[in-house]
Amino acid sequence: MARILITSGPTRQYLDPVRYLTNASSGRMGAALAVAAIDQGHEVVIVSGPVSVDYPSAARLIPVVTTDEMLAASTAAFADCDGAIGAAAPCDYMPRFIQTQKIAKTGEPLQLELVETADVVAMLGQKKRPNQWVVGFALETEDRRFRATVKLEKKCCDLIVSNGPQAIDSNENDVELINREGAVIASIHGDKEHVARELMSKISEQLS
Amino acid sequence: MARILITSGPTRQYLDPVRYLTNASSGRMGAALAVAAIDQGHEVVIVSGPVSVDYPSAARLIPVVTTDEMLAASTAAFADCDGAIGAAAPCDYMPRFIQTQKIAKTGEPLQLELVETADVVAMLGQKKRPNQWVVGFALETEDRRFRATVKLEKKCCDLIVSNGPQAIDSNENDVELINREGAVIASIHGDKEHVARELMSKISEQLS
Repeated sequence: MARILITSGPTRQYLDPVRYLTNASSGRMGAALAVAAIDQGHEVVIVSGPVSVDYPSAARLIPVVTTDEMLAASTAAFADCDGAIGAAAPCDYMPRFIQTQKIAKTGEPLQLELVETADVVAMLGQKKRPNQWVVGFALETEDRRFRATVKLEKKCCDLIVSNGPQAIDSNENDVELINREGAVIASIHGDKEHVARELMSKISEQLS
Repeated sequence: MARILITSGPTRQYLDPVRYLTNASSGRMGAALAVAAIDQGHEVVIVSGPVSVDYPSAARLIPVVTTDEMLAASTAAFADCDGAIGAAAPCDYMPRFIQTQKIAKTGEPLQLELVETADVVAMLGQKKRPNQWVVGFALETEDRRFRATVKLEKKCCDLIVSNGPQAIDSNENDVELINREGAVIASIHGDKEHVARELMSKISEQLS
């Protein structure tokens, strides 16, 4: 049995004390993967951004807000894990400058310079020891399979799960699991609980 | 007894199909106000952005996503109401351009031009008939009372509730209710249910 890190949910990147950039990730896929992993006898650590979903109480939960916090918590937790599944949708841009007071409206446009945040899964992929594995998720609106394969390579993942934007904040998902050779080793469709069980079985089969 | 429109929760302004700008408004204050208003015998229509809070089933609920949708739904609903309480935190900036496909990361900074969205409470304030009333909310990080009074005037409100950023996504709130003369007619502190009941009593007393 393995100890598995699951990142889950969105992160937030604040512009000022009130406004932030994020996405609609609900944490449901991460929660379903955690349940499936625990049911299959694994130990689970979840690093999650702000969500209203319930995670299984048998998992250890580390709540975070920003992408940097998710990176720090995930890197620390990964050191003691056999593998990681990056089901989170970390906010990948952040304002270059964060205002300490609420930005007052002036009637004029606001120019915002966004810079890329750290890539959590890529950092785990780079840091993994030979006996550790990393499964990424790729959410793309076009050229899904091709872009997922590029991401797998770039982020040093062992497997990548390709899905579309309709997965976000939905009860259902429609995914392809792609290996390092770029081959689709599973196509799974259904509610997130079903998809999570099938994914966990395939991941265990391929990586343990 | 009155028919009251309550706007509640945050709105979202998308940059592309995945990323959006928002705030952490939970809808709890709006839900608590709806419960208090119904308990006091009023009829309630709620126009709410995406939240996970439960609204009372006795209220009519109109779900929206963007600030423009909140404006359209609120303007339409307000025509049949005696008054409106703007407890929502509509996202007040939106990207000038919305990308139809997910923006791909390039490693370079992203320049985002944000323009102001319509001000929902100000539009209701401008449109109100002589027998209608509008109560606004002002969330400020500095000069709270002064800025709330300016907002009351600018948005043609009859009363304004001043609170701070610690109100967001919290169970508690600490508010001042300010009238058109700039006088603080109530200072209320406690859980949002208590604050909502006290606010509804004061609003009824002042405006009906």
